[in-house]
Amino acid sequence: MREAIGIFDSGVGGLTVLKALRKRLPEQDYLYLGDTARLPYGSKSETTIRRYALNAAEHLFRNDIRLLVVACNTASAFALPALTEISPVPVIGVIEPGVRAALAGGARKVAVIGTEGTIRSGAYQKALHRAAPEVSVTAAPCPLFVPLAEEGWGDHPITDQIAEIYLRPLLDTGLEAIILGCTHYPLLRPSLARVAGPGVSLIDSATAVTDAVVQRFRGPSAGRGGVGQVAIHLTDASDRFRRIARAILGSDPEHLEVVDL
Amino acid sequence: MREAIGIFDSGVGGLTVLKALRKRLPEQDYLYLGDTARLPYGSKSETTIRRYALNAAEHLFRNDIRLLVVACNTASAFALPALTEISPVPVIGVIEPGVRAALAGGARKVAVIGTEGTIRSGAYQKALHRAAPEVSVTAAPCPLFVPLAEEGWGDHPITDQIAEIYLRPLLDTGLEAIILGCTHYPLLRPSLARVAGPGVSLIDSATAVTDAVVQRFRGPSAGRGGVGQVAIHLTDASDRFRRIARAILGSDPEHLEVVDL
Repeated sequence: MREAIGIFDSGVGGLTVLKALRKRLPEQDYLYLGDTARLPYGSKSETTIRRYALNAAEHLFRNDIRLLVVACNTASAFALPALTEISPVPVIGVIEPGVRAALAGGARKVAVIGTEGTIRSGAYQKALHRAAPEVSVTAAPCPLFVPLAEEGWGDHPITDQIAEIYLRPLLDTGLEAIILGCTHYPLLRPSLARVAGPGVSLIDSATAVTDAVVQRFRGPSAGRGGVGQVAIHLTDASDRFRRIARAILGSDPEHLEVVDL
Repeated sequence: MREAIGIFDSGVGGLTVLKALRKRLPEQDYLYLGDTARLPYGSKSETTIRRYALNAAEHLFRNDIRLLVVACNTASAFALPALTEISPVPVIGVIEPGVRAALAGGARKVAVIGTEGTIRSGAYQKALHRAAPEVSVTAAPCPLFVPLAEEGWGDHPITDQIAEIYLRPLLDTGLEAIILGCTHYPLLRPSLARVAGPGVSLIDSATAVTDAVVQRFRGPSAGRGGVGQVAIHLTDASDRFRRIARAILGSDPEHLEVVDL
């Protein structure tokens, strides 16, 4: 499948990006790679995350993708410069689109939540500061959110309580927007929206990166028509990952292949 | 460090086994390997878990260990026969010792809790049935327990509530013992004990496997005196793993090395 849009994530959470892209650019082919055998990235060191991200990207390059979308926030935070350096095709990460989406709404008090790695990297914080030095930025790692999302507890009283613990100190500063800096977090939207309240926008990095990709395909080269193909490559395909993939996509993935990087 | 006791776990949870062994066999040398770059094993497929476990064991064999202790429940559940087949030294997993410890207390209604992988494998359930066919056995995967333990919430009202959700159906059958089939779970003992109540024994597989190892070193070859060395090899050494290792060991690990398998 030459000329597909390549999407890479540490796991299956990035399928939210694939789903959003297919809706808006249905004529494109997609090759999704989830590094499920080595996930999660968020708790691991910068060196390991960068090595894994480069491995994964090389697999996609060997498959002749036309564009690399790094849906994984932790990989975007730590490996985007390294990926861009070796990539024969354009690379789009989630950080810059997420930041643009947060600022486009006019928020002046913004928080970022994500894995320990993403928050520790400071990538979102630095990008927000570069784009809008006057905006106040806070951040918090939320290590239990990915397991809660994978447990299917996105709309659950326990998730509300945990979100209250993680987010209360941020919310008390008078927040206007929270960047959901992890592909899994949109699955917790019901609980997060209850805890954050109606005055706080929840910025989904999957939607934001989708906008950035769609932007690229506007113009003469767009809309060749028809419906493109989708291939999903996973480095491990346990029942658990299949179940989560099904929950995100709304159906069983066609063309699922287990690959070794 | 030739002739060390090799201990293998997917992460740093197995340091509870190292700590218990050092207390009882202080004169031995220990080489601990935590596959932190690829953890967790519990959500992955049998094929991947077996491949990782064999990789890890080969690293320990190259370091001339005298005995292999598989502290990881998921690896014990899926890879013990494969490990035993290739091992030049004796191999001790956590399943059989955990089962013996549960039955030694006279329990006739026993539950096993663990990762999705460990429970799905049926390894504890089968071993209990083989050892005592009259004993009634139930089991439940508890996917949030490892993240809760790593968050340091072993004695926390939220952990109590989650334990109530996972364990109530088991407790209502009139349980006498619960096998904690994961190296992280003893870190949740305060919450688990509150929820299980005083009539239910919590069987720690780390203690059980320690007993099995101590058993082997009784007799003429034991007690050469002195205090042995400890080396810790991790495949990734993020701040997070160092912090959890410190919480388990009570001090910073000496001789920590990052290795590539």
